[in-house]
Amino acid sequence: MSVLLLLSSFAGADEGMWLPEQLPGMGPQLQEMGLEIPPEQLADPQAEPLSAIVSLGFCSASFLSGDGLVATNHHCVSGFLSYASDAEHTYARDGFLAGERSAEISAGPAARLYVVESITDVTEQINGKLKKRTKDVKRYQIVDKSKKLLISQCEAQANHRCEVASYYGGQQYRLISKLEIQDVRMVYAPPESVGSYGGEIDNWMWPRHSGDFSLLRAYVAPDGSSAPFSADNVPYQPATHLKVDPTGADPGEFVMIAGYPGSTYRYRTARQMRFAEEVSYPYSIALSEEIIALLKAEAATGDEASGRLNSSIDQVANGLKYRQGNLDNFAGSDVVGRKQAQWAELEAWIAADPKRTKLYGPVLAEMDEMQAESEASFEADTTIGYLRWLSDNLGVAHRAYRFSVEAAKPDLERDRGYQERDLERTQQRFDAMDGTYWEPADKQLTELTLKRLMALPPEKLPVGMAEHVAAAGGVDALLEQLFAEGTIPDAATRKAWLEMDRAELESMDNPWMQLAVLLESKTLAPQRAKDKALAGASLRLQPLYMEALLQSGDQVYPDANGTLRISVGHIKGYSPADAIEYQPQTTVAGMVAKVGEYPFDAPARLVDAAASSTQSRFADPDLGDVPVNFLSTLDSTGGNSGSATLNSKGEFVGFLFDGNYEAMSADWLFDPELTRSIHVDVRYMLWVLEVEGADHLLDELGLSEK
Amino acid sequence: MSVLLLLSSFAGADEGMWLPEQLPGMGPQLQEMGLEIPPEQLADPQAEPLSAIVSLGFCSASFLSGDGLVATNHHCVSGFLSYASDAEHTYARDGFLAGERSAEISAGPAARLYVVESITDVTEQINGKLKKRTKDVKRYQIVDKSKKLLISQCEAQANHRCEVASYYGGQQYRLISKLEIQDVRMVYAPPESVGSYGGEIDNWMWPRHSGDFSLLRAYVAPDGSSAPFSADNVPYQPATHLKVDPTGADPGEFVMIAGYPGSTYRYRTARQMRFAEEVSYPYSIALSEEIIALLKAEAATGDEASGRLNSSIDQVANGLKYRQGNLDNFAGSDVVGRKQAQWAELEAWIAADPKRTKLYGPVLAEMDEMQAESEASFEADTTIGYLRWLSDNLGVAHRAYRFSVEAAKPDLERDRGYQERDLERTQQRFDAMDGTYWEPADKQLTELTLKRLMALPPEKLPVGMAEHVAAAGGVDALLEQLFAEGTIPDAATRKAWLEMDRAELESMDNPWMQLAVLLESKTLAPQRAKDKALAGASLRLQPLYMEALLQSGDQVYPDANGTLRISVGHIKGYSPADAIEYQPQTTVAGMVAKVGEYPFDAPARLVDAAASSTQSRFADPDLGDVPVNFLSTLDSTGGNSGSATLNSKGEFVGFLFDGNYEAMSADWLFDPELTRSIHVDVRYMLWVLEVEGADHLLDELGLSEK
Repeated sequence: MSVLLLLSSFAGADEGMWLPEQLPGMGPQLQEMGLEIPPEQLADPQAEPLSAIVSLGFCSASFLSGDGLVATNHHCVSGFLSYASDAEHTYARDGFLAGERSAEISAGPAARLYVVESITDVTEQINGKLKKRTKDVKRYQIVDKSKKLLISQCEAQANHRCEVASYYGGQQYRLISKLEIQDVRMVYAPPESVGSYGGEIDNWMWPRHSGDFSLLRAYVAPDGSSAPFSADNVPYQPATHLKVDPTGADPGEFVMIAGYPGSTYRYRTARQMRFAEEVSYPYSIALSEEIIALLKAEAATGDEASGRLNSSIDQVANGLKYRQGNLDNFAGSDVVGRKQAQWAELEAWIAADPKRTKLYGPVLAEMDEMQAESEASFEADTTIGYLRWLSDNLGVAHRAYRFSVEAAKPDLERDRGYQERDLERTQQRFDAMDGTYWEPADKQLTELTLKRLMALPPEKLPVGMAEHVAAAGGVDALLEQLFAEGTIPDAATRKAWLEMDRAELESMDNPWMQLAVLLESKTLAPQRAKDKALAGASLRLQPLYMEALLQSGDQVYPDANGTLRISVGHIKGYSPADAIEYQPQTTVAGMVAKVGEYPFDAPARLVDAAASSTQSRFADPDLGDVPVNFLSTLDSTGGNSGSATLNSKGEFVGFLFDGNYEAMSADWLFDPELTRSIHVDVRYMLWVLEVEGADHLLDELGLSEK
Repeated sequence: MSVLLLLSSFAGADEGMWLPEQLPGMGPQLQEMGLEIPPEQLADPQAEPLSAIVSLGFCSASFLSGDGLVATNHHCVSGFLSYASDAEHTYARDGFLAGERSAEISAGPAARLYVVESITDVTEQINGKLKKRTKDVKRYQIVDKSKKLLISQCEAQANHRCEVASYYGGQQYRLISKLEIQDVRMVYAPPESVGSYGGEIDNWMWPRHSGDFSLLRAYVAPDGSSAPFSADNVPYQPATHLKVDPTGADPGEFVMIAGYPGSTYRYRTARQMRFAEEVSYPYSIALSEEIIALLKAEAATGDEASGRLNSSIDQVANGLKYRQGNLDNFAGSDVVGRKQAQWAELEAWIAADPKRTKLYGPVLAEMDEMQAESEASFEADTTIGYLRWLSDNLGVAHRAYRFSVEAAKPDLERDRGYQERDLERTQQRFDAMDGTYWEPADKQLTELTLKRLMALPPEKLPVGMAEHVAAAGGVDALLEQLFAEGTIPDAATRKAWLEMDRAELESMDNPWMQLAVLLESKTLAPQRAKDKALAGASLRLQPLYMEALLQSGDQVYPDANGTLRISVGHIKGYSPADAIEYQPQTTVAGMVAKVGEYPFDAPARLVDAAASSTQSRFADPDLGDVPVNFLSTLDSTGGNSGSATLNSKGEFVGFLFDGNYEAMSADWLFDPELTRSIHVDVRYMLWVLEVEGADHLLDELGLSEK
């Protein structure tokens, strides 16, 4: 049974991150909700509006002009701004405006724009090779190799990145082919005091007054092919671009987003949710609090430090608030209880029929065992993960070493991220590191996570770590040795490491490499082998589990997996608590009313201009002012940041940039009463551009004054 | 010109704390607003509803039954509950319910209920004795003596208290005669976790879920005359009582309150407002923060301590939040700017006409000088005030000494509060002290304020204080001497002090009395003499100032002065900030949603009952639940606490108990968009009484189940 056909239960509700191909089947309901273009048009990645929707890899974006002008969030480009900053310029803080094309600056060698060209159903090419009795490890290998083969064939096209995405836990696969644009430049970014007005205090909050938008431009070689940054490159000419509707969208109006939601857990088990509530979220929260305290203290030492660290602080703070918000939501609206009730329903549905009991009963039991296993190693896995992420030094050494290990295998058998196709991108990331590395922070973060790791009970420690630390003379002595030679190796050395073979790296007299080799060979590699068996088991179990879930319930869209999705809904407020109604729009006057100390330090030029915002051509007649942010019922999650918000005609009316506080637990369970997405109103961007004197950009958007 | 006739500009707006006699002149507008009873009825203190409105002296209240059942706020009886508590019972925390009449306990010898019997215009009897050229001190004395004479004649009736109230700064006077009921008993008080649910966190806040109500009963001698507490006393039979409307009132509905607002500053000068903003509020806030920290630490030491101190903590915290809220409001909505604009208008109006310039110009100039003088001595005055208030020991000594000083004069020439009529009440307050004094707190508070006082620059110190402290060997040595003999003198000694003559007290070898004599004779008495001259000047200037204000503007009600007033308005929410709408009603479900740690620790029996509150006979059909609190546009201030909220027919629908945060600065300037009063919905009281099993009280209210 293909779950993609199970659309009869869709009744125009707001829950759902739909595959474009699902929309034609929802036609009547979409029209009833207010969609004015044919639903079939939304299923075609080559047609407007989807052909104008792009990805930065970690955020969503869209083309707004025929000259490759790209709209996304301010918080999506903070890494680019950090990269571009130097001792004289702190663009992440002060903003950036290129007065003309030639002043547009590179977003760095790691910046990418992906333009989807095709989405192909490849389920049969993958699952057709599996037999019912295929063993788990073999099952994983078959699926993995099939996917890599499809990718490698697809990537035979120059400058294309391809991926095989899995839906419903492996019940369905799609091959997605994307043009990879490598020369991305900054066009406009507001100052931090506009782009993240309200900062951490307002993050996830409503009412909101954030100008969380920015403009980039895609560049290609003069012949139109994708190429790395070069002064000779020219603006990319996309097939289509979105039309900006300068009248925006009003409360009650139909809106949709097209973007790349990262991941949701809507089909996780009740046990997994409880583990998040009781163990994993609290553990990460405690660790994140220490990390943030440390990073903030370090960022306070000066402009260069804060320029390099602010992006990490934002990232960790966002994760922290996300987990804390989930816990608050879990406690506040009994999300866990509702999930458990759903679970009990599923169990009852299975138990009600002997055939179902025979088919699905063992699936649930085995999934439970798998979860128990992952819970047992959670603390060590997580702490090693933080260590590798937070220590740039260990990160470089470990990545180089893994490349050398994988290099011994045929390309298609290598682990994802360590194939030939990944080498150049890794090299570019290594290059970009000089612009973001900050030794004092790296040192303290390494110490923090390493000590946390060593504080685990002996039986949970990574294999050989106790001996390694003892041989160095204790954790402090080891840390001293690690940082004795100072900073991260220079760009040339990093490049050389990536090209060395395994034996060379293993015999290297570098304490970072030695630590990387130990962790990889004794702990991470064996763990991955185990994970592959589990993944194989999951490929066997998940489709059955999803089948049971979908037969017993009524949800019909797959969990988010970083692929292109469309959500549909309306502009609408909500009631967060007894006697409080949140209206769905905020105004420039409301932004000015919040002006005060950081993070509410809106620039004087904006505050001055606000005195006449009611007279602006971008003011809303009903509000009597320029709208700043709005709320919608659209289903979204991390990765959707930067998603174009479209009206019923598919025209651009805003930027999705956040969910409300109550929406955090929506990753587990969507609540139509409380779950909202937060958007920048396009009229706020237009007003800010006018205040900033960016007339050439308003021209390019077709919105010059006369 | 009598300003009371200036009613033409009243257009049904919500601003105004009206004298009952003003209402008949507002008839058409009141009817348009929704009033259904004749406005004339509201002007008659002998007719319903006013005849059922009473005062506790510091709070408002009303009769709800023919057997003297009185409704007021929970926070108005916290002193009574503290008095009644002992080692076994902490009624302020746990609440109190008398299962039958005989179990109703005394609220203490100082508790009073005042029932207004008549209000008489005595302007001519007072101002008729003044000539234009009467000197200021003389003017003060004539007015003072006239008032005292009227009071003394009025109080010839047994068990009556009379007052002469001044309106518009002495332009008008009314003689108010009140029956004084001296036996007041507790009938029902909810536990603190209901009566001040949300505590300091929610104080002044909306949305609110407070059961801030309580029930008292008035008792009199068997012959119907007022008498102190006696087991033989019987319930008082009021002339009328309010009818409870168990269907409450709904959003948009007309409501009014009748009660005793304490004081407002609507006609203060812009300079006075600026001084509050820049100097006096910040000074008191800083001091209050220290006092609260100290009291809280002390209250945390045990149940008895907290029982005795909680009432003071609430009082100081409330004042602190009030001043802080004023400052926030001043900053947030430019109250000071608007006041200054009004002031500029007044000055322009005066300057526009030579006659006005000649008449009113000097008035404004002289008022400015008077204000400058009071600003100069502000810090010393305030700190001595706090010292006398916070130190029960000094308070007793000082009051006794002042009685002895005043005793030398004929009764009518004595200062207010120190006449024959005040002796018994003072004695009762002295008696009640044993139930509320808490030495460790008194000691620390005395130290705190005394040291603050001594930290003032030498030229601002009270006369002789430096020498007094030096003679004792420094502040610490003085404090040691003050507390060497331990606690406050016993009740018999306190009584004896009140009866001693001046010479006896002045020669007494008691360090508290010596301090009291020094402060009184060298600083307070001379200051009072100066104040009387200023008061005389004020009696000359204020009526002219008010005349100018009222001619140039359109406000027509006098500032609150603790006398009976009626405010009219509607049940209505408001928008506190961009995109936030506050609805005007909260529900039991909303109360339960807040349940957590103190101060949100609603009792389990209430939370359990809340599971079926939607089915209660007191549930609102539109809300689908029992309403808890509601917002109105009614103009109110401190002293209005406990005011009966009446519907268009004059029936009881709730208890006013607070203003919203944005309403604090309304004491200076009323803002129709933001100023709201907060009420307990009568249906919440009825539901709580039912949950508590107080069927006999529901019976008495005519609301038994069948």
